[in-house]
Amino acid sequence: MTDDVRTVEWAGDGLRLLDQTVLPGRVEHVVARDVGGLVDAIRRLVVRGAPALGVAGAFGVAVAMLQAEREGWDGAARDAAIARIREARPTAVNLAAGVDRAVPLVAKGVDAVVAAAQALLDEDVRGNRAIGASGADWIAARTPDRPLRVLTHCNAGALATAGWGTALGVVRELHDRGRVEKVYVDETRPLLQGARLTAWELERAGVPYLVQADGAAPSTILRGLVDVAVIGADRIAANGDTANKIGSVGVALACAAAGVPLVVAAPWSTVDLALPSGDGIPIEERPAGEVLAWGGVRTAPDGAAAFNPAFDVTPARLVTALVTETGVLEVAAGATPAHAAALR
Amino acid sequence: MTDDVRTVEWAGDGLRLLDQTVLPGRVEHVVARDVGGLVDAIRRLVVRGAPALGVAGAFGVAVAMLQAEREGWDGAARDAAIARIREARPTAVNLAAGVDRAVPLVAKGVDAVVAAAQALLDEDVRGNRAIGASGADWIAARTPDRPLRVLTHCNAGALATAGWGTALGVVRELHDRGRVEKVYVDETRPLLQGARLTAWELERAGVPYLVQADGAAPSTILRGLVDVAVIGADRIAANGDTANKIGSVGVALACAAAGVPLVVAAPWSTVDLALPSGDGIPIEERPAGEVLAWGGVRTAPDGAAAFNPAFDVTPARLVTALVTETGVLEVAAGATPAHAAALR
Repeated sequence: MTDDVRTVEWAGDGLRLLDQTVLPGRVEHVVARDVGGLVDAIRRLVVRGAPALGVAGAFGVAVAMLQAEREGWDGAARDAAIARIREARPTAVNLAAGVDRAVPLVAKGVDAVVAAAQALLDEDVRGNRAIGASGADWIAARTPDRPLRVLTHCNAGALATAGWGTALGVVRELHDRGRVEKVYVDETRPLLQGARLTAWELERAGVPYLVQADGAAPSTILRGLVDVAVIGADRIAANGDTANKIGSVGVALACAAAGVPLVVAAPWSTVDLALPSGDGIPIEERPAGEVLAWGGVRTAPDGAAAFNPAFDVTPARLVTALVTETGVLEVAAGATPAHAAALR
Repeated sequence: MTDDVRTVEWAGDGLRLLDQTVLPGRVEHVVARDVGGLVDAIRRLVVRGAPALGVAGAFGVAVAMLQAEREGWDGAARDAAIARIREARPTAVNLAAGVDRAVPLVAKGVDAVVAAAQALLDEDVRGNRAIGASGADWIAARTPDRPLRVLTHCNAGALATAGWGTALGVVRELHDRGRVEKVYVDETRPLLQGARLTAWELERAGVPYLVQADGAAPSTILRGLVDVAVIGADRIAANGDTANKIGSVGVALACAAAGVPLVVAAPWSTVDLALPSGDGIPIEERPAGEVLAWGGVRTAPDGAAAFNPAFDVTPARLVTALVTETGVLEVAAGATPAHAAALR
């Protein structure tokens, strides 16, 4: 999967993105050669997932520089364009962090910015491998010694990252060790990242899985059908409160009620130490149409309105383990990101 | 709404059903004049909802009798056909109870069976009105004195009953008293009874509402946006464990975590005193295709399998109040259906 799924890739004169809006039906790419196209691709979720957004943000700075050069913008116009990329989606801290990592290199030219973005991409893949290994070790030590029934929500796989994946990286590592019986994949309405993207990745990787409605997840857990739940994260506060795709906190509540460990797998760059708790995490609200229709088929009556928050916040007390490339924090037991940062 | 929504109605020579599979796009009816057609309509959810299934089951006995007469069946063939109706769906106790209510009248002829079924229908509407009034009284006494933010899951409205509704009957009664600010309507995947049916009923009744993805419900509740959640039930065990549409227990867990009351509204006929707890409730698993596609659009990759339980069980400790036509039981506080039955 990592050999051939290239979520984000520099194309010399623009950013080549695997178009996640048309998967699993079609495998197509979009090349963003201007800021408007890139911002649109980010907003439409052509590229998505906190780590992938970070890498796209860093390369985006190069896109803005090339467009500025081509169209004769001054520095202020270029910087305003970079700020538009940085703010294209509000919840994931990684997008802004990726932009911020490339910005100091603007004075050194496009090649330096591209090199920094590429370094971030390579780091992401390396980090994901480390997350997969530590996560699998932690899970293996705390679950019965047999192939496991794993539950995941949304897509925190190769498609959400520069490659391999965070939550799905853990699942793939467990699978490579012969420790996965099956994966329950929440379909993840409204945009079905689970049914479309996670299922596509698991299908390619040969990992057995079952797609289920999001509403099924709590009872699947309460019925004793799940040994461990593994999800990604879009932003993690200093106390361990975790923003992830809408529906995650329902999974977390059920895990707590059933005594099933909830593992959050994410790069350390997802942690935002400036936020003391999840109360400060901005929750993106997306268009009503995502909820009221699917595949061009209207589901609700004319006149219907919708509430469409894209993320929810799982309180730290429900996060059994946070796995980053730097190790595992047992957050619910008191090992918060703030503590870990203070100990460094 | 009750004046013109006739979910189930005797048509003289068959059972006229409002086809809930094509709502809200089209308002069409199906007339079931033979047992095969009726069983198919029940399985495809042309008619659905525990109370409506009870009434359909009672009228179904008359459908079987007419077909037996027409096609020259013997008594054994007729009884086998009646048994097929009784078992068309396994979870709701009401379907079997409705059939069982009509069966003793078979010897008295079709008119007597139709009269018994019609009496059940009339009782259902009267019972729903009583549920609405008690539920609204109980909620009004325990919530702030202002229009309320209500959450509901699936459809327990006029469409799920012979008219008026159980959970939505409570909501409509609150609305008539000026006590509803808005209703959060879980879309209720996979078949979208919330987005399609509850939204259609609320739209017609002029009650403000917002459709949301099922995964959003727990965070909407945890964020303090909901004053009370009201759901229906498909079967309730003697101890108060409640089977309802898949996704209900996620709502219940969030209500408990947030201190929001969870009200289950259902006719007493939904209670199955023969079952000590929810462990004995059979959970219907429906076809994978319901999860893997929508509106003819495939959502998951080729080769995907699905897990599609139609119901989940909310443990009694999470059911703040059970409202039936006989009054309110504060189940989580210990007032179980078994206790109530013993006191009669």
